[in-house]
Amino acid sequence: MDFLNYPQPLADLISCLARLPGIGPKTAGRLAFYLLQQPRISEDLAQAIHAANHSIRKCSICCNFTDQDPCVLCQNPQRDSSELCVVEHPRDVVSLEKTKEFKGRYHVLHGVLSPMEGIGPEQLTISLLLKRLEGVKEVVMALNPTVEGEATALYLARLLKPLGIKVTRIAHGLPVGGDLEYADEVTIARALEGRRQL
Amino acid sequence: MDFLNYPQPLADLISCLARLPGIGPKTAGRLAFYLLQQPRISEDLAQAIHAANHSIRKCSICCNFTDQDPCVLCQNPQRDSSELCVVEHPRDVVSLEKTKEFKGRYHVLHGVLSPMEGIGPEQLTISLLLKRLEGVKEVVMALNPTVEGEATALYLARLLKPLGIKVTRIAHGLPVGGDLEYADEVTIARALEGRRQL
Repeated sequence: MDFLNYPQPLADLISCLARLPGIGPKTAGRLAFYLLQQPRISEDLAQAIHAANHSIRKCSICCNFTDQDPCVLCQNPQRDSSELCVVEHPRDVVSLEKTKEFKGRYHVLHGVLSPMEGIGPEQLTISLLLKRLEGVKEVVMALNPTVEGEATALYLARLLKPLGIKVTRIAHGLPVGGDLEYADEVTIARALEGRRQL
Repeated sequence: MDFLNYPQPLADLISCLARLPGIGPKTAGRLAFYLLQQPRISEDLAQAIHAANHSIRKCSICCNFTDQDPCVLCQNPQRDSSELCVVEHPRDVVSLEKTKEFKGRYHVLHGVLSPMEGIGPEQLTISLLLKRLEGVKEVVMALNPTVEGEATALYLARLLKPLGIKVTRIAHGLPVGGDLEYADEVTIARALEGRRQL
């Protein structure tokens, strides 16, 4: 793909957009022209990216994305501190919250163990998880049912069970190989209900 | 769609992204989380949008997007000033340039006549087109083969023919109802070759 015919700032914009997941050069070109034709929308977008980059950080307790530390969920006194739900991504917290089935607290790993990609326990937020186990009776593994997700759940179960904590995993109601983010609320709710001890 | 569970700057970012064409709330969420996880890519993108917005403007001659005025094509002394190709969007110039078939100059309308959407001749760059007809022998209509594109071509032909200018239209090699941007180079080249007088 050459962008020879585009003026440089436009070519830069297209190549930046093409770096986003699921956006190829053709879509990137279309988006770039749309942004140029809609200066208000594009300035809003640039500012929103900037604002999100500067104000969104990881909660020091649960590692979820937040604009205040600790995050809303960690500050909420009505959440059950004895239940901890471990998820891969911040977006999984939103998926689970939509079911309104889980009343405990969350812990976001920001990934799963993947030796192939060089992701070990140090690259995840596992050390922070181990520091917040006081009073925790149950840890629910709500990781995606992929090979890496399963391996990560088993790894954590092996760390947590010797500490006398009940470790459960959401049921395989999710299609194997699928993605938590794209499951419907009922499926996720069933998966939460049918969790079983590791 | 509610974004209740997202912190405000993240919700803002998602709703900004969801305003882009072809991007729904789910994709917007995915892109937003990607941008948060890749601060360098997202800062680059914000800056590229900002830079494009500030440095890209319409060429005062052909109305194509450019970072210098007049644009590279209008400045090029090797282009044939007696042939003028009228297109709907700046991206159509790129599509035509890729065929390397057209050696003349361009004029970008930034839309087509569409009474339904309140787009009349004043909303397009038709007055600028009429001012640059000195020495022009042929005007090639390279508008999309849609109802609005056909109507605009006929409208312009009626304006230009009394001035003694040959008005042609690229051939219907393009599938009717299709979009110039997505046609392959050969099809566009055929369409240019087979142009006929209106």
